[in-house]
Amino acid sequence: MGEPTRNNVHEGTYRVGVDIGGTKIEAVLVDAAGSVAASHRVPARRGAGNVVEDVTALVRTVAGEHLGELAGVGIGTPGQVDSEAGTVSHVVNLDIDTLALGPEVGERLGGIPVRVENDVNAAALGAAQLVPGARGEGTVVFLNFGTGLAAGVIVDGVLQHGFSGAAGEVGHIPIDPNRFACPCGQRGCLETVCSGASVQRLWPADGRPAMPDLIERAHCEQADAVRVLGIVSHAMGDALQIVGQAFDPRVIIVGGGMAKTGEPLLDVMSDELFRREADCPFLKGLHLADRLRLAPVDQPIGALGAALAV
Amino acid sequence: MGEPTRNNVHEGTYRVGVDIGGTKIEAVLVDAAGSVAASHRVPARRGAGNVVEDVTALVRTVAGEHLGELAGVGIGTPGQVDSEAGTVSHVVNLDIDTLALGPEVGERLGGIPVRVENDVNAAALGAAQLVPGARGEGTVVFLNFGTGLAAGVIVDGVLQHGFSGAAGEVGHIPIDPNRFACPCGQRGCLETVCSGASVQRLWPADGRPAMPDLIERAHCEQADAVRVLGIVSHAMGDALQIVGQAFDPRVIIVGGGMAKTGEPLLDVMSDELFRREADCPFLKGLHLADRLRLAPVDQPIGALGAALAV
Repeated sequence: MGEPTRNNVHEGTYRVGVDIGGTKIEAVLVDAAGSVAASHRVPARRGAGNVVEDVTALVRTVAGEHLGELAGVGIGTPGQVDSEAGTVSHVVNLDIDTLALGPEVGERLGGIPVRVENDVNAAALGAAQLVPGARGEGTVVFLNFGTGLAAGVIVDGVLQHGFSGAAGEVGHIPIDPNRFACPCGQRGCLETVCSGASVQRLWPADGRPAMPDLIERAHCEQADAVRVLGIVSHAMGDALQIVGQAFDPRVIIVGGGMAKTGEPLLDVMSDELFRREADCPFLKGLHLADRLRLAPVDQPIGALGAALAV
Repeated sequence: MGEPTRNNVHEGTYRVGVDIGGTKIEAVLVDAAGSVAASHRVPARRGAGNVVEDVTALVRTVAGEHLGELAGVGIGTPGQVDSEAGTVSHVVNLDIDTLALGPEVGERLGGIPVRVENDVNAAALGAAQLVPGARGEGTVVFLNFGTGLAAGVIVDGVLQHGFSGAAGEVGHIPIDPNRFACPCGQRGCLETVCSGASVQRLWPADGRPAMPDLIERAHCEQADAVRVLGIVSHAMGDALQIVGQAFDPRVIIVGGGMAKTGEPLLDVMSDELFRREADCPFLKGLHLADRLRLAPVDQPIGALGAALAV
């Protein structure tokens, strides 16, 4: 390619994606081909003003000399997002009540278009870009086993938000027979048992990641580990049947902090599905276990996906 | 408009839709505007040969002088459908094991394109055409409380089949705490409690429709009716939360035989949702009860939808 013309430059060949987390904010510069050209991260500071300031600075840093060539900025954030308005509210971990995140950041960056997405939706887009076989036509569900449990749903490459932005909020379907109280006010929400945070609560492992420890001890037939893993994997089976039978997706990507458990996590999920399939030809015919994939844990899928959402 | 040219005629201005049921087969002729121009029905006869013969004859009858102008024929049928191949299998009520329904009917009609759809999917398309506010952009879920329980999912006017044709098969998600045995081999499937057939089994009403009788007696505080309605409405609440939170649809159309119960059925569902919302601001914010609509029970939505699927 020769020197880009001024006009081409303003059509924008680069995008920046920002992933706001509870402890860090990460940004990537994504080129026209959808590849990560640069990345940078800073510790997260609490408060709306700090978040706007840090995100803006991070965009400038990661864009570098390409700042003038940005087609737009995408931001993935926890909390309740209104993508139309670019606002986010109830970001408890960062002390944000309500924030016009998109407009505030856009104004500081000279009017660049800014797209704000729910963090799980952004991660879904990023993961679907990187997981083999997840790009292109058909439905892909990204199941995020993080602090909470929620799904991002992509149909033919397009993120599905639903009528009120709640598409994929399967974590608060109250069907777990243990009926633990959920902070949402219901009892027995899936999220009370099989989110990353819930497993950490059900199986405190001295600050170490709970799930690998739980699986290892259950494999050694330690009785309480077998019991707790039974509770967790049952709820995982319910979550997989719900997204599997509602959406019948081509690929189900397992993400969130719990994905760091790696293949043993997929084995637990597959075993639960096989157990359920044993007596049910219909479920067996769906081969849901074959559709499971791990989200890449060593790549900035949240920030990448936020950029792709632009 | 003047006299259509021969060419225009062969592009096809009419479509025929056929709805195969356990007791009757119904066909409609649909004009270019999507309106029903003619309809006809015959009793269903068992056996693959009879079904092919009856469907073919019905298409000829309902198309009449427009037979040469058909753009295609759509057929909605119970059983397991492969829309790509035009085949259907396991139609238990009609003694059909496997049948190349599309190719067989198409051949008898001189090579007209024939589209075969699952009956619930066809009804979803037909209902979405007729229910006020359900056409156009966004997601519409049609929840069919019939012999079984299944959903048809329409996104931006397009039926969603999923990877293996199982999208919307929520009836066999096993989460009902009663854990009744399901013919599918699992226990506690939603379908074991809140399908039309299940309610009829849980509340035998001397051959009369069970749901209106059950609701009426529960309103009169007849103890066993209150208990059974509690079981049924709890499963309905689960089904509504599953489709409501997975898809976040703009409209949820309640169809199937149970829709003949009318407004009292929507009241039962709404009350169950209100009960669940009482302690949960998240669920309350979704206003799922406002999204409920009854499918029209006096119109051939299955046959109309089959035509629209062409």
